[in-house]
Amino acid sequence: MTGRRADARRNCARILDAAEAEVAAHGADASLEQIARTAGVGSATVRRHFPSRRALLEAVFRERIETLCALAADLAGAAEARDALLEWLSALTAYAASARGLATALALDGADGPDAAHVNACSVKLTDAADPLLVRAARDGAVTPGVSAADLLALITGIALATEHHKDPAAEADRLLGLTMAGVSPQR
Amino acid sequence: MTGRRADARRNCARILDAAEAEVAAHGADASLEQIARTAGVGSATVRRHFPSRRALLEAVFRERIETLCALAADLAGAAEARDALLEWLSALTAYAASARGLATALALDGADGPDAAHVNACSVKLTDAADPLLVRAARDGAVTPGVSAADLLALITGIALATEHHKDPAAEADRLLGLTMAGVSPQR
Repeated sequence: MTGRRADARRNCARILDAAEAEVAAHGADASLEQIARTAGVGSATVRRHFPSRRALLEAVFRERIETLCALAADLAGAAEARDALLEWLSALTAYAASARGLATALALDGADGPDAAHVNACSVKLTDAADPLLVRAARDGAVTPGVSAADLLALITGIALATEHHKDPAAEADRLLGLTMAGVSPQR
Repeated sequence: MTGRRADARRNCARILDAAEAEVAAHGADASLEQIARTAGVGSATVRRHFPSRRALLEAVFRERIETLCALAADLAGAAEARDALLEWLSALTAYAASARGLATALALDGADGPDAAHVNACSVKLTDAADPLLVRAARDGAVTPGVSAADLLALITGIALATEHHKDPAAEADRLLGLTMAGVSPQR
């Protein structure tokens, strides 16, 4: 039994890794068959762990979002509040640019429909993670008054969506994030 | 004949007006039946002027884009280059937020596929219109170095996409445009 449970855990981790790579490459309509092949398991095994495409995507997103939340917690004590905020936003942008399904999902935030609950849960986690970094940077006078964590999420979601079909979405998204932070036309 | 031609022109203008309102309210999947009803013509008349949904949407977008290009030309001689640029970008944002199909279409820019030619034509017109305003504002030192007209279009497209499901997309998009112009965290 122990051996079989260890196998199951290993398979689950393999499927998640494969799913993450497929989602990064192909967005939310990643192929389940390809995920099974990359993970080296059968389609039935994928279905046993994740009964639907949605369940698998949610597991992938949940894991990535946990990683971003952990990074925010690590950065909360950094010496330079502005640098910490920018580093985290850059990580969020890299993630949003690669996990194309997430950006689409976040754009639907607040919309009604079957996805609303899950999407809202993701958004809440990310705004909660961003908030302490934003508050610290604002206290240092490094943030334009009136900016909320939800604004940052919306701007980054937009950048990820607008660069989705670019040759190099991650690089382009990071460049546009830089412009948004510095300002296209900051007041002199 | 002259009377019939005048009728046809009037019908065409009515259909375009109705289509513009429907697209603003419902995006690219606006109802052709509703457009015909609002214009006070039959579906056959709509089809005679615009053989496909795509032809009608293209005509709507073309007209709105011509209006934006004309505004850019008007603003090119304004006394304050920065104000002129911001006014035009605000008009573009209002348009992108209301004509939801355009933002989706612009996000596909550069993508292959049947829409690529039309979308590219729209993007080229808008970047050409933005360019003189951007160059003048940059000459005044009012723009962060390295910003291109294509960057402005991408940022505004992203804002329109990210605010699509907001309660008041136009107001929210304009607020996020303001943040992007001023900078979320401008360098001190």
